Amino acid sequence: MTDSDLRPGEIVTETPTDFDAGVWFIGRIRTPWTDPADCPKQGDMEAGPVCRVEIDPRWAEALDGVAGRARLQLLYWMHRARRDLVRQNPRRDGATVGTFALRSPLRPNPVASSPVALLGVEGATLLVRGLDCLDGTPLIDLKPERCPRAQA
Amino acid sequence: MTDSDLRPGEIVTETPTDFDAGVWFIGRIRTPWTDPADCPKQGDMEAGPVCRVEIDPRWAEALDGVAGRARLQLLYWMHRARRDLVRQNPRRDGATVGTFALRSPLRPNPVASSPVALLGVEGATLLVRGLDCLDGTPLIDLKPERCPRAQA
Repeated sequence: MTDSDLRPGEIVTETPTDFDAGVWFIGRIRTPWTDPADCPKQGDMEAGPVCRVEIDPRWAEALDGVAGRARLQLLYWMHRARRDLVRQNPRRDGATVGTFALRSPLRPNPVASSPVALLGVEGATLLVRGLDCLDGTPLIDLKPERCPRAQA
Repeated sequence: MTDSDLRPGEIVTETPTDFDAGVWFIGRIRTPWTDPADCPKQGDMEAGPVCRVEIDPRWAEALDGVAGRARLQLLYWMHRARRDLVRQNPRRDGATVGTFALRSPLRPNPVASSPVALLGVEGATLLVRGLDCLDGTPLIDLKPERCPRAQA
């Protein structure tokens, strides 16, 4: 990315030269959206399209027990987002705000978290509803949705 | 970690030699718990202790606008967890289940997600309630809590 991608008022920071930890992509998310402009603003667990979450064979055995869950939390890596913005202009209207006050993909560690409804499991592929990300987005984690404390 | 840490029935996979992406630690979480055995099983946004989230100066400007939020989502890196388990024995009772059917810290990418209540902001430090992690845990992201779709 270059500075030409910046909108008015946006501010970048100098990012560290070294990473502090590493992430493995554990699978890929298949959605109908291949252009960021087409992605919905937020996923819809009731009316959104069914998407496929393909888990790498290396981690397939870790899916045992997932099929019984109605809802999951997916964490994925927004691999096309720039990571150096500290202040953003999300509506292109000149009103800027800090990156951590937004759920924008543009953030130091581009990790998204989405709740999804689990519709089915076919081998190492999950069928889910509720995503809003690009086709091909790398998955980094999935887990049962957090229980309300009363049920914990 | 060595195989001696494994409980009966637990299964590991051979992890990839290279990482697919890198994470920057953007701050540290200060909590009362220095031993994993002391951490609560789940945070409590109402009755839990107030914890401090110290943001690295590099990212401090990205906090602008956060102070107005009542609830945040924190993502942090469970840096002491082994990452190669595909099947776990969480209760030490011999009943094993796949890693992705648990919210255990032991997972390929040890990213935890917690909702917290924001009580205050002091410079680049947030005062929050609702955490359950070890003192010194690295922070990797914070963002406003996801809005229910009706309010999106």
